[in-house]
Parts: sequence; structure tokens; C-alpha cells
Amino acid sequence: MAASGENVQLLGIVGSPFVCRVQIALKLKGVEYEFVEQTLGQKSELLLKYNPVHKKVPVLAHNEKPIAESLVILEYIDETWKSNPILPSEPYQRAMARFWSKFIDDKVVDTTWKSVFTVEEEEREKRIEELSEALQFLENELKDKFFGGEEFGFVDIAAVFVAFYVPLFQEIAGLHLFTAEKFPKLYDWSQDFLNHPVVKESLPPRDPLFAFFKGRYESLTASK
Amino acid sequence: MAASGENVQLLGIVGSPFVCRVQIALKLKGVEYEFVEQTLGQKSELLLKYNPVHKKVPVLAHNEKPIAESLVILEYIDETWKSNPILPSEPYQRAMARFWSKFIDDKVVDTTWKSVFTVEEEEREKRIEELSEALQFLENELKDKFFGGEEFGFVDIAAVFVAFYVPLFQEIAGLHLFTAEKFPKLYDWSQDFLNHPVVKESLPPRDPLFAFFKGRYESLTASK
Repeated sequence: MAASGENVQLLGIVGSPFVCRVQIALKLKGVEYEFVEQTLGQKSELLLKYNPVHKKVPVLAHNEKPIAESLVILEYIDETWKSNPILPSEPYQRAMARFWSKFIDDKVVDTTWKSVFTVEEEEREKRIEELSEALQFLENELKDKFFGGEEFGFVDIAAVFVAFYVPLFQEIAGLHLFTAEKFPKLYDWSQDFLNHPVVKESLPPRDPLFAFFKGRYESLTASK
Repeated sequence: MAASGENVQLLGIVGSPFVCRVQIALKLKGVEYEFVEQTLGQKSELLLKYNPVHKKVPVLAHNEKPIAESLVILEYIDETWKSNPILPSEPYQRAMARFWSKFIDDKVVDTTWKSVFTVEEEEREKRIEELSEALQFLENELKDKFFGGEEFGFVDIAAVFVAFYVPLFQEIAGLHLFTAEKFPKLYDWSQDFLNHPVVKESLPPRDPLFAFFKGRYESLTASK
């Protein structure tokens, strides 16, 4: 819990997977914070002041000291509020957690996006193949209930993109890629993770997000 | 220093900026290691075994436990061998170090490459402009002798790309971007950093690297 006199602000947009990561971590730690909602496509003065480099959410401001980049923020949260550790304590396990979180950012996020919103057919097929390979790596990596073991941790939080956004995007595009048949362990994991009370409370409402991206998808495919 | 009975291997290629980061960190910590040289364009069995996901160097194997991704390796080294800390101890300063290291990977490395090896003129000009902006952010961020303070640390090591490779590439392409006039603090930093005994010993020999990339550059511009 944030000590009295502490000021914790999260600059975010509802629906951003990167913001959602920070929300899950703060909720897990029981840190009270103010959600300073930003408008998509507009850069508020506070955002420009707090993240002049990338001008993007999320930004966590702790007593007016700003931090950007969701995985950097997660490490900060874990080092600042010690209850319910997100990262393991052993250096090798910590390295593995950092490796797989980076893997999700490098190999899943952008690829998912392109596997849905790429107009050119051959290119899109290639992205779907890449996404399938990436999900297979995660399927193989999952040894316990969660990536973090019996409790969820750093990789699980990073992988909220896999649990929540990949199914949403594939439904929009009519893809049948991330299914219980093809990735049984990862699929079970996604259900356990999404139904965890801390995660459930932190997720954005699905319907408006679905409608928003469905609209973008339809205008894209209509213009083909 | 590695405890007796410890086995530290670094799978690398001489000339890789990412491998060089790990070499600097190991040397700073006084860790003895075996350099297992890989051949460019070939994937050894050991590399495929140790980094099946990305199939890339560097890989650090500590008692046969492999870790990939240079910044992940640096954190592991810092957590495993405690002398000469690479990261600051205070959480906010640690977050800043992680932020700027990621910034170098996201905004400098690829941009430098493209500002030299992009054939299309307009696109190349755009990359040079982006690189210039990125260097300006680093110039503004530099408050002490090193990014790490009086001693070099995590960001400095990540920024070996800026100190050693940016000047090399700009010389190949006849660019005059990273100069003492345009970026005085960053330029002084680069000289201090490159002349630090630990760094000096860890750098690849410049001449063969220059010849290699000059050759690639000339064949590219000849084919325009």
C-alpha cells in the first residue's frame, strides 16, 4: 500500500495493454494510485512533461518523479513496494523472466497487430506464421500454473497481451490460432490468469474495445 | 572473480556491439570467462542449443545455464557478481538506467544502421535526422563524467554503441553528425569511456571492422 503522503499517478489510456500491465502490478501490490486518463491521439502537457522522449503512455509518476516504458515501470514497482514480489529472487530466474517479457514485446505484440491489420495477403500469412511460432515458444516455456509458478509474476503480467488481446484481435479477424486445441497449456494459463481477481479487476471492458478495433478492421478490409 | 569450479562461457562474435557490452561488464567485475567464438552467418550447435529462440549472440552460459539478450545478461552479471556495481542501488535511478539503455536499443542502434545503409536518399535523410534527435536526448541526459556518475555503469556500457560504433559508421558514410561541436558533452564522454582501461581492453580491433563495413557500404552504393 502506498504510504500516506505518497503520490502515485498513472498516466494511461483505458484499453492499452501496456497500461494494463502497470494496473495489474499496482493492484497486486495494493498500491493506491490516481489514474490520469489521456486522450488517444492527443498529447497532454503532463504527458509531454513526463515522457518527452516517447510521448507515450503508460507513465508512472511517484511523488512527481516520472517513469516510462511498461517493463521498466514493473521493475520499479517491484523494487519500491516489496509485498507480493513480481520477479523471482534468484538471479537466473530473474534473467529468464526478463528474457521472456522482452520476447513478448519483440515477437508477439507487433506480430499480432500485423497478423490482423496487414492488408497484403502474403505478408499477413507470414505474420500469422510468426505469431504461431511465438505462441509455441510460450507454450513450451509454461511449466506451472503460471509463468511465475503457483502465483503469477513478471512474465504473466507482460503476457496479458497474449491472454486478453490476442483472442480479441483473432476474433475480429476470424482467425483460429490461439485455441485450446493448438496451445492447450497456454490456453489454460490464459483462463486462470484472466480469472484471477487482481487481473479481472484490472482489465479494460472488452466490448467497447472490440467494437473500436472491429471498426478499424472493417474500414481496412473494405478499402482493399 | 569467478569462484573456482565456476564455468563462465561467452558465445560471441568479435565486432558485435552487443557482445562487447557483455565483455566490458565481465571485465569490470573481474570475471574470468571463456570466449566461444561463433562464425558470422553460421549457427553452431551450441548456439542453437543455448539460444533456440533468437539463435543470436551474445549468450552467457554460467555453469551451463544460458542467458541471451545483452541487457538481460548485464543485469544477471550485476546480480551475480557484486563488486563494481553496474546499476545504481536506488530504485528510481535503476529505472532511469533501464529506460536509457532501452532507448539506445530502440532509437540509436537500428537508426544508425539505417542512416548509413539505406539506399533511398529521402529515407536515409530521415534516419539521420532521427539519429541526431536521439543523440541530442543523450547529450541532455549526461550530467556527470559518465551516465553512471563518476564511474561508468549500465547506460555507459549499453552506449558503447554510441561511443565506438556510431563514429565508425559515420566515417564509413562520410557523415559529420556525432562531433565535438554538435554534441560536446556526449563527445567528451565517448573519449573518457573509450579510454577507460576496462573498456579499451574490451573493444574489438577497429581496422578490420572498418574494412568489413566499408566493403559492405561500397558494394551497396555501387549498386545504386
